Amino acid sequence: MALIVQKYGGTSVGSPERIRNVARRVARYKALGHQVVVVVSAMSGETNRLIGLAKEIMPEPDPRELDQMVSTGEQVTIALTAMALMDLGVRAKSYTGAQVRILTDDAHTKARILSIDEANIRADLDAGYVVVVAGFQGVDENGNITTLGRGGSDTTGVALAAALKADECQIYTDVDGVYTTDPRVVPEARRLKSITFEEMLELASQGSKVLQIRSVEFAGKYKVKLRVLSSFEEEGDGTLITFEEEDNMEQPIISGIAFNRDEAKITVLGVPDRPGIAYQILGPIADANVDVDMIIQNVGADGTTDFTFTVHKNELNKAMGILKEVQAHIGAREIIGDDKIAKVAIVGVGMKSHVGIASQMFRTLAEEGINIQMISTSEIKISVVVDEKYLELAVRVLHKAFGLENA
Amino acid sequence: MALIVQKYGGTSVGSPERIRNVARRVARYKALGHQVVVVVSAMSGETNRLIGLAKEIMPEPDPRELDQMVSTGEQVTIALTAMALMDLGVRAKSYTGAQVRILTDDAHTKARILSIDEANIRADLDAGYVVVVAGFQGVDENGNITTLGRGGSDTTGVALAAALKADECQIYTDVDGVYTTDPRVVPEARRLKSITFEEMLELASQGSKVLQIRSVEFAGKYKVKLRVLSSFEEEGDGTLITFEEEDNMEQPIISGIAFNRDEAKITVLGVPDRPGIAYQILGPIADANVDVDMIIQNVGADGTTDFTFTVHKNELNKAMGILKEVQAHIGAREIIGDDKIAKVAIVGVGMKSHVGIASQMFRTLAEEGINIQMISTSEIKISVVVDEKYLELAVRVLHKAFGLENA
Repeated sequence: MALIVQKYGGTSVGSPERIRNVARRVARYKALGHQVVVVVSAMSGETNRLIGLAKEIMPEPDPRELDQMVSTGEQVTIALTAMALMDLGVRAKSYTGAQVRILTDDAHTKARILSIDEANIRADLDAGYVVVVAGFQGVDENGNITTLGRGGSDTTGVALAAALKADECQIYTDVDGVYTTDPRVVPEARRLKSITFEEMLELASQGSKVLQIRSVEFAGKYKVKLRVLSSFEEEGDGTLITFEEEDNMEQPIISGIAFNRDEAKITVLGVPDRPGIAYQILGPIADANVDVDMIIQNVGADGTTDFTFTVHKNELNKAMGILKEVQAHIGAREIIGDDKIAKVAIVGVGMKSHVGIASQMFRTLAEEGINIQMISTSEIKISVVVDEKYLELAVRVLHKAFGLENA
Repeated sequence: MALIVQKYGGTSVGSPERIRNVARRVARYKALGHQVVVVVSAMSGETNRLIGLAKEIMPEPDPRELDQMVSTGEQVTIALTAMALMDLGVRAKSYTGAQVRILTDDAHTKARILSIDEANIRADLDAGYVVVVAGFQGVDENGNITTLGRGGSDTTGVALAAALKADECQIYTDVDGVYTTDPRVVPEARRLKSITFEEMLELASQGSKVLQIRSVEFAGKYKVKLRVLSSFEEEGDGTLITFEEEDNMEQPIISGIAFNRDEAKITVLGVPDRPGIAYQILGPIADANVDVDMIIQNVGADGTTDFTFTVHKNELNKAMGILKEVQAHIGAREIIGDDKIAKVAIVGVGMKSHVGIASQMFRTLAEEGINIQMISTSEIKISVVVDEKYLELAVRVLHKAFGLENA
């Protein structure tokens, strides 16, 4: 007998029929003798419907009232899921975040979980209930309803698993696991049986949208055994996310290839090569709450240097506007924006102990005539920026070069 | 400066535009220096939508889970109403029933309010906020969300007014007050400036759908000054519901005429005229949770008697089936059901001190050739059952006979 937390996203509970499917799956686990806690999101489309309604009333909705309102999406789903279980003869009971007492800070629309009172859930589990908990939401110490931000239901699932010391946290989604790369780009992409927490983190932050990054961090911090599964398939073990070093021994050098088309590049040419110049450029950008990803500065020859960084494509114009204003003050010769770029990264804990991975990557791209515009590395990841039009080609040849199509 | 509780029903908050109208009205009261607590229902249609969704999953929804789900209707409206106020520059804050801590018993879908913790609301009012509270809902001592049953938002408004010792509880609805009778039947029907609590109670229970009967009882118990107003008209004082005896001095003898087409009549003919026969007939009916309204038993001549009572039309078949089963045991000769009846009642505290009201009523109906099938009286009400086809005629002639068209 195990204690399992299962999280189902908005698509998995998107209609009464799908909710019944979820209930059937949960009932099967229960019939095997397991204790099951189910975390559900709002039915797909519902959160956006509610936000739309709010914006009709108040163009920039008050965050407290928005949370009050948007949290009803999951509240409806937990009740429906509990009813679907009861309809199958399974005892079930639903809890909102506030009813569990998932205590958060008061940062409405992006709150962080501070603690979880798991006593009632544990008592219900011991009494034979399946407990259905609303994802994405909590309550602050003054009783105000908070939400954890988009994708926060994953975080709820992992946090509950940690609080209950669950044997496994299963994240059901519309894919059946984590792949070596996006199968829409590389048909040979292969589902990984397991992946390390660090690799998952790099893949998630690089654009693999399987799991919300905060939930993976959370799982790592509390050593929660996390498994990604498809809610639309009956069979399959999904992908297990591992945390123990020994689990990594058999890992291949490279686990997967992530990519991202959402960034744009800004190059500030011919700035004086003096201390503080990076801050003078990026300070105004940060002040305007524009997130910066990769940053590169080359040593210059004639007392000037070129400074390049990437931002989200949606924020390119905003960032360019800010830099144009400070251009004279900085003493930059020219500022160039380019949104026709893509980022490709190879990820793997194995590369820590293997030299030559970077050169193999660069050679593979060079052989295809793909020019590398920027390079950035971490212990388990090498990212490059290339012309957007080469993205698919780059992913395909790297996937093949690192032997990812073979188990 | 007064403390006013305003309650708006589902039609009054049925769209973003109507919610903005409510906010504008509240803002005007606030601008006059009043403290305002707003109680709102779910947007019209929303509660039925949610119940329909629940029934798709579970034909007879679990009551706890149904309350968990249905309560989201008001939760959305409070947030939207608070936002609409903020959009007008009025500080506002919303509370669910659980957040106020409107403590109820655990009778899901028809809970009763046990107590209200008004401390947070009072603090917010004193800090200059308009407080927006979800009607219809509360929380039991174990933190389960409960609902008060249909129309329970009126009860929430009155209960809050009582707890806060508000100067007035204003119930906004789609009519501009309480009328001498339904204007759709008698065009000369006149809005009453005031009506006593007891009269209101009789009018409400007789089918005047202006106010939920429990809220009127509640208002009477706690001496809450209650006023019915239209949410669609800018002007007008509505109808004040009074409780003090002295207020009644100037009351007319008859205040209004109520009627009801929803009942059916069952006559049990030729039962032995012996003690306990009424219980033998009505016991099985009550056990089946069929509500009985009027009951009449005549003294019989030949050792038998006829027993007549009314039930809701929807429950006529059920009640007839139950009686057919026990007919032999009771020793009844025949059981007759009739759903072609209507009930008409004249209501007025004035009739307590005036003789001849009943005979005037019966003479008026006789002059029109309307046969009276049943009669029932209370201190301030005389009800008769007539053939359904005479309903409108009976109401019109009684309205004229008692001079109700003149102020």
